[in-house]
Amino acid sequence: MRKIVTGIDIGGTNTVFGAVDAEGRLHGEGRLPTAQYADLDDFIAALAGAIRRLTDKVELAGIGIGVPNANPRAGTIEDPPNLPWRGIVPFVEKFERYFPGIPIRIDNDANAAALGEMTCGAARGMRDFIVVTLGTGVGSGFVSGGRLLSGAHGLAGELGHVTVEPGGRLCGCGRRGCLETYASASGVCRTVFELLAECAEASELRAIAPDELTPLRITEAARRGDALARMAWELTGQRLGRALANAALITDPEAIVLFGGVAGAGELLFDPTRKSLEESLLPHFRGRIKLLPSGVPDAHAAILGAAALIRSEDLSR
Amino acid sequence: MRKIVTGIDIGGTNTVFGAVDAEGRLHGEGRLPTAQYADLDDFIAALAGAIRRLTDKVELAGIGIGVPNANPRAGTIEDPPNLPWRGIVPFVEKFERYFPGIPIRIDNDANAAALGEMTCGAARGMRDFIVVTLGTGVGSGFVSGGRLLSGAHGLAGELGHVTVEPGGRLCGCGRRGCLETYASASGVCRTVFELLAECAEASELRAIAPDELTPLRITEAARRGDALARMAWELTGQRLGRALANAALITDPEAIVLFGGVAGAGELLFDPTRKSLEESLLPHFRGRIKLLPSGVPDAHAAILGAAALIRSEDLSR
Repeated sequence: MRKIVTGIDIGGTNTVFGAVDAEGRLHGEGRLPTAQYADLDDFIAALAGAIRRLTDKVELAGIGIGVPNANPRAGTIEDPPNLPWRGIVPFVEKFERYFPGIPIRIDNDANAAALGEMTCGAARGMRDFIVVTLGTGVGSGFVSGGRLLSGAHGLAGELGHVTVEPGGRLCGCGRRGCLETYASASGVCRTVFELLAECAEASELRAIAPDELTPLRITEAARRGDALARMAWELTGQRLGRALANAALITDPEAIVLFGGVAGAGELLFDPTRKSLEESLLPHFRGRIKLLPSGVPDAHAAILGAAALIRSEDLSR
Repeated sequence: MRKIVTGIDIGGTNTVFGAVDAEGRLHGEGRLPTAQYADLDDFIAALAGAIRRLTDKVELAGIGIGVPNANPRAGTIEDPPNLPWRGIVPFVEKFERYFPGIPIRIDNDANAAALGEMTCGAARGMRDFIVVTLGTGVGSGFVSGGRLLSGAHGLAGELGHVTVEPGGRLCGCGRRGCLETYASASGVCRTVFELLAECAEASELRAIAPDELTPLRITEAARRGDALARMAWELTGQRLGRALANAALITDPEAIVLFGGVAGAGELLFDPTRKSLEESLLPHFRGRIKLLPSGVPDAHAAILGAAALIRSEDLSR
């Protein structure tokens, strides 16, 4: 019987999951609408049922779960801002009742993404790298000497909340100037608003209501030559590059991998980020750190990353 | 015969060394005036001779060397700004000819300090902590999961050159706003000059020529109630705390240890640093990270740290 790991990615809108083999190939997948499960026990019962059906013909070797605000040591989700459940959510304790004897690992989605890049993406074969997830929020996973950094309290890797502009934009966390307020999806939109306030440059983005603006529309405008849209990506890259340099000076990675929807801007984002990263590094670091796009197939990156939480455990046993 | 490790700390003015036993006790020490050895081979011959005399009655189990700009993988010192030798200095290759068969490890002085704190200082028993050295320069050593982070190129831990004020003070490295320009010995003095430029407050520091100003004199003035001197430490702590928070958000340490001459300001520096650190952390990190003074006896901290470079090797074999 084939050995299979299940990878689950719990997001605010949808939860996606799939059965992954030892070579990182996907054998079947599914999804649940997270937002429609106000009751945690209902969600866990539905998810467990769906995974049992997906894996009833194989040997289930483990279940890896990627989710924002996971505490990998406690097996909990702590105060998730975009999920339907509040407080300390004892996810693993409840979920493992459905899968006695099966190893279950939970970690934050950016750490799962880092393991995914290491096992089947852009960081294959690397022992020192950083994965930065640029989406609704900004997260990160740091691998150093071949191991995921977890920290003293399981909280390592909060690059989204390093201060990149002292006294800068107000963040959802209550502080000012966090990287997330500049490099997340809404952060890039805020940079457009900043430019609208500062200059009178004509731009097709002036025809889009703020609520309708997205990084994709900014990218499309920039590709059509819209100067304001290009400048928004330029400023995003400047700030992101500075934050990446500060992180790189601490952990000295071989590569930094940019993952998630905002990274879809491609060279519009990568070029200014690379320039700012290089300028913000000490001279003897320059030219040594690669800036790479994710190497995990887009549609399944989150599932493969979550499955890798189990894979790395198996490898280290 | 007693097993002994030799710890060597190479500084710009003096090189100090000592014989250290398995319990971290010092059995004899010595020093050489580094600055007087323009020729590297002369220095190495003199140092090897002194260490042979120091250890002729014991079994020498290894030699650990702490020095700024060390490359631990290559065994070299790279472009040391404050030492008499230029370029890539092949230190270990030359030194080991005098000690055939003896393990010799070189690392930067801040990494040595971190191992010293772990084996016999403030970080005893900790697996996740940061040591920040505040002296002529600012350095750092990061321990995560019980291991010193070294990075992909052996360059990890350059906290002195993270940008803490974008567009801020010009640094010796050629960039602007590095932590070192605010939290090193000369950085604290520059903050006094900044305050002299900004306000007309009476201060005993106005009687001291800029060339004569030191952190110790600023501390003494502050302890006598000098408002400008107190404000200089306050501003130093604000910037240092912000940089420490950014590092802590990445590696999630149990403690941050402040080491070196500038940390001698005690609560004048620790109080505002702790306040700024806490304010700059995500809410769920707050109250969880200790800010500690070095726990290694002052006079021998550098020697014990360098000796610990060998100790950790022995333990991992």
